[in-house]
Amino acid sequence: MAANPDIQTCALLLARLRPLFEQATQALAQCCAEEGVFSARRFDAQQVASYELAWASADLLAAETAIQGPGSDANSLETGLALVFGIDAIGSVLARTEMLFLELGLDIAPLQAFASDAAWAALRRSAGSAAALQAVGWALANADGEVGGVVLDEAHAMAQDAFRRFAADVVAPQAEALHRHDLTVPESLLQPLREMGVFGLSVPERFGGHAPNDRDDTLLMVLVTEALSEASLAGAGSLITRPEILSRALMAGGTEEQKSHWLPRIAAGDPLCAIAITEPDYGSDVASLMLRGTRVEGGWRLDGAKTWCTFAGKAGLVMVVVRTDPDRSAGHRGLSLMLVEKPSDDGHAFAYRQSEAQGGGALTGKAIATIGYRGMHSFELSFDNLFVPESHVIGGAAGLGKGFYFTMAGMMGGRMQTAGRASGVMRAAIRAALRYAADRKVFGSPLLDCPLTLAKLARMGARYAACQRLAYAVARTLDEGGGRMEASLVKLLACRSAEWVTREALQLHGGNGYAEESPVSRYFVDARVLSIFEGAEETLALKVIARSLLEQALADATPARSVAPVR
Amino acid sequence: MAANPDIQTCALLLARLRPLFEQATQALAQCCAEEGVFSARRFDAQQVASYELAWASADLLAAETAIQGPGSDANSLETGLALVFGIDAIGSVLARTEMLFLELGLDIAPLQAFASDAAWAALRRSAGSAAALQAVGWALANADGEVGGVVLDEAHAMAQDAFRRFAADVVAPQAEALHRHDLTVPESLLQPLREMGVFGLSVPERFGGHAPNDRDDTLLMVLVTEALSEASLAGAGSLITRPEILSRALMAGGTEEQKSHWLPRIAAGDPLCAIAITEPDYGSDVASLMLRGTRVEGGWRLDGAKTWCTFAGKAGLVMVVVRTDPDRSAGHRGLSLMLVEKPSDDGHAFAYRQSEAQGGGALTGKAIATIGYRGMHSFELSFDNLFVPESHVIGGAAGLGKGFYFTMAGMMGGRMQTAGRASGVMRAAIRAALRYAADRKVFGSPLLDCPLTLAKLARMGARYAACQRLAYAVARTLDEGGGRMEASLVKLLACRSAEWVTREALQLHGGNGYAEESPVSRYFVDARVLSIFEGAEETLALKVIARSLLEQALADATPARSVAPVR
Repeated sequence: MAANPDIQTCALLLARLRPLFEQATQALAQCCAEEGVFSARRFDAQQVASYELAWASADLLAAETAIQGPGSDANSLETGLALVFGIDAIGSVLARTEMLFLELGLDIAPLQAFASDAAWAALRRSAGSAAALQAVGWALANADGEVGGVVLDEAHAMAQDAFRRFAADVVAPQAEALHRHDLTVPESLLQPLREMGVFGLSVPERFGGHAPNDRDDTLLMVLVTEALSEASLAGAGSLITRPEILSRALMAGGTEEQKSHWLPRIAAGDPLCAIAITEPDYGSDVASLMLRGTRVEGGWRLDGAKTWCTFAGKAGLVMVVVRTDPDRSAGHRGLSLMLVEKPSDDGHAFAYRQSEAQGGGALTGKAIATIGYRGMHSFELSFDNLFVPESHVIGGAAGLGKGFYFTMAGMMGGRMQTAGRASGVMRAAIRAALRYAADRKVFGSPLLDCPLTLAKLARMGARYAACQRLAYAVARTLDEGGGRMEASLVKLLACRSAEWVTREALQLHGGNGYAEESPVSRYFVDARVLSIFEGAEETLALKVIARSLLEQALADATPARSVAPVR
Repeated sequence: MAANPDIQTCALLLARLRPLFEQATQALAQCCAEEGVFSARRFDAQQVASYELAWASADLLAAETAIQGPGSDANSLETGLALVFGIDAIGSVLARTEMLFLELGLDIAPLQAFASDAAWAALRRSAGSAAALQAVGWALANADGEVGGVVLDEAHAMAQDAFRRFAADVVAPQAEALHRHDLTVPESLLQPLREMGVFGLSVPERFGGHAPNDRDDTLLMVLVTEALSEASLAGAGSLITRPEILSRALMAGGTEEQKSHWLPRIAAGDPLCAIAITEPDYGSDVASLMLRGTRVEGGWRLDGAKTWCTFAGKAGLVMVVVRTDPDRSAGHRGLSLMLVEKPSDDGHAFAYRQSEAQGGGALTGKAIATIGYRGMHSFELSFDNLFVPESHVIGGAAGLGKGFYFTMAGMMGGRMQTAGRASGVMRAAIRAALRYAADRKVFGSPLLDCPLTLAKLARMGARYAACQRLAYAVARTLDEGGGRMEASLVKLLACRSAEWVTREALQLHGGNGYAEESPVSRYFVDARVLSIFEGAEETLALKVIARSLLEQALADATPARSVAPVR
């Protein structure tokens, strides 16, 4: 089957843009290096350029993936969506790369030549025209929001179907009340989710979970998360994140005993879990965490505070990142992971006191009221002389000081999970906008008939489809052992995209979108959390994506430099 | 004093960009014309292009105004902000104009020549560099958010000072509770606001208000609105909109008796007012309104529904747009304005029943729960055989059928007022972000020291300053009898800018920004209403701004065509 000629042009343009982007990356890398070696100090001074670089890399990779996507399974909707996204992305990458060239003192002539290229103008005239956007908008409406149709193998497709049906039938009817009354996720949601096995998606089968024994199945986790998040971000889609992080930490660092004891329970959703990392004065800065563990007979005593600990009330098991090495200069090498068991509590505040025999330590928690992402509640926690037995230190004595490393695999999974959450919220918003636009009449005809509405829907669909396709692709790469930087990249792009898509969907609803009884108002406030948690946008863009690109660029440059040093 | 050379370059570039934008406008106008006359049908088919045109015109006018702004009163902060905005705006106008050229089949060579111009690259290297952005960010931080320092005459400056102080002292302390508990604006806010005279800002002095007798003082209204909105959008800043619209309707169409009776009362804030225009099935489509007035002895009976009637509970006087001509084909020429008196009510629902002597009609209302803009509440209203005496029809018998025209002046004022509201919310968000960034430490140093934080703050400040400057300029033009299209344009730009600025301000706060106890979370949800009410974004962009530009372009083209017809 012959590929669409616009797809070919777009792919060609992206292939020509990639080396220009890489030229900027290499030049910026040289600015961030001292004697060819990456310098954190110099890199810090280049934050503004690095931020542009990270976003350009996200758009570029997403566009490359989107354009490859339709392939021989192309249908006109998928092709149209890929082209709409591709054109927007080329424009954005071009602008950001030009900013980088200007900043870095490079000659912008090659970029201007690209911008003036006849093929680029022709592509926009053909696939970026108002008529093309409207056609894609119509196709999207006719597909009833079945967008981003990435072809899945049968097992994954069946899981997606099953969870989408479950989300629509069981989760969606409870989502509005959960949000508006700021309730705690009820057993009427938790029990069927346990039965569906969602808490064991990252637990290998031999430990009672649903992941293969010999590899991860990140794609499945993303698919399920996406399906559940479409119905409720906080009531269902986000329940997987915590067992995901905890299971992976146990798999990475737990003793055999700990794995056999905890993993089957986590997979069964009993106890439910929470993860306590962030502290009041430290957001993404893990190396500075201060919650103190003091060694006592038979275990440790914990003192200090954590915050933004989601689901800490309902959870029966909290994984806590503890500073076990009193020498603060040890940074993240002084951190260990401990498991705290506590009673499950449905309220917005709890106080758990240990028995006198255990020393009478206490853990108290208070939910932080938020504009969205309601249902699990995020807690401020105060640890006061809380006893943790030796058996509950992940990895035992050998695990001390390795807490940071044990969380890494889970963090990666958490970011992919969050890309899935963002996709689910986008899908919900787009389908709500499609329904509303079909029903609502303005100036005598359905809103959906307006060319502007169709063009907006096309852009929303294009962004969603591109993020979803990239998330699936990165999930597969992760399961093959790569894709660590890309997991942050797709999280960055999908979360910001979800903010934009929900904003546009709300706007299409007019005043009705601003009313709490419209689900789209919830999608909008829920989406706003995505760029903040699981690695804030700025942290991911700078400390993960840009840094990784620049270090790679320096590594690539080294052999060449050893032969013929530049400058 | 010699102007900054970058300002001169930016002004020059804008002067070269303007004719390219106008070429696109003229070409689009020709597409929307039949035999040289504007065709609504053809225009409708060009919505996507028209939408781009409207946004390009907003960015272009705002940049032109910003760059003229600093003038001889330039200080480095104002100049820096103007340049940051100017560069962003040129980039955006260029991209949108290029899209229009491609869409309209025009030769894009002149745009590419502009994009490749050395002066444009030099300007970006000089005033758009990371270093320049950081310097502007620092200057903004050092000015403690005193941005957009438009020079005001003494009377206006004093009013601004007084209202900013009042807002900080009286309004701000009550704002959080009002929002979080969805209260009704209490007398502890209303009474001091009455004493400050805010309800009489659009009422001429001879009728007991604070506006000059011989002209409007839109600038004062915008300044006061901005100052109050900084403390609370719904608890203070928006209280002026309703008396503004009602006063202007009375001034435009009321009988002398109606003016003398109502204006002093409205100015005194007793009764408080509400405006009922929108109906459940019709948002911005005024010509289709259906609420029916039936002539009876001594007056009219009203039957039908209104929605999104803000403050209808607390108000003692509701201006209602009523269809008095049963012939629906009369469109907006069948509408009249009536004043409904009702008891003031503090709740989220009310039911007012007229006496049996009056015929036992009823008006019931129910507040719509919204994600923000809480305090005044927006109501669904149901009119059931409600009696309105002849004396309460604005303009009496002569006013019948002129309701739409009487609201026009108020609508214009409402849009300027909304630009002021957006400015106030932006100012609040920027100052909150500055404070937070100065206090919060990340990775060992204040967030404010991060180059990326400074660059983000610079862009936020630049956008706020540009919107504020444009709003003040348009306010002055309106008072001189012009600026009708520009009032919609500045509303469009300021509201979208407020969404973006509050989003960025929240992001700088990290997780804390998502917590309801952070004021920035309120600014974010409040800002989201701005692009919806007082003329939805799409309606203003298409039906007011683009249409007005295109009709003007056709009018400009006519003399030339009458001499030498084109095509």
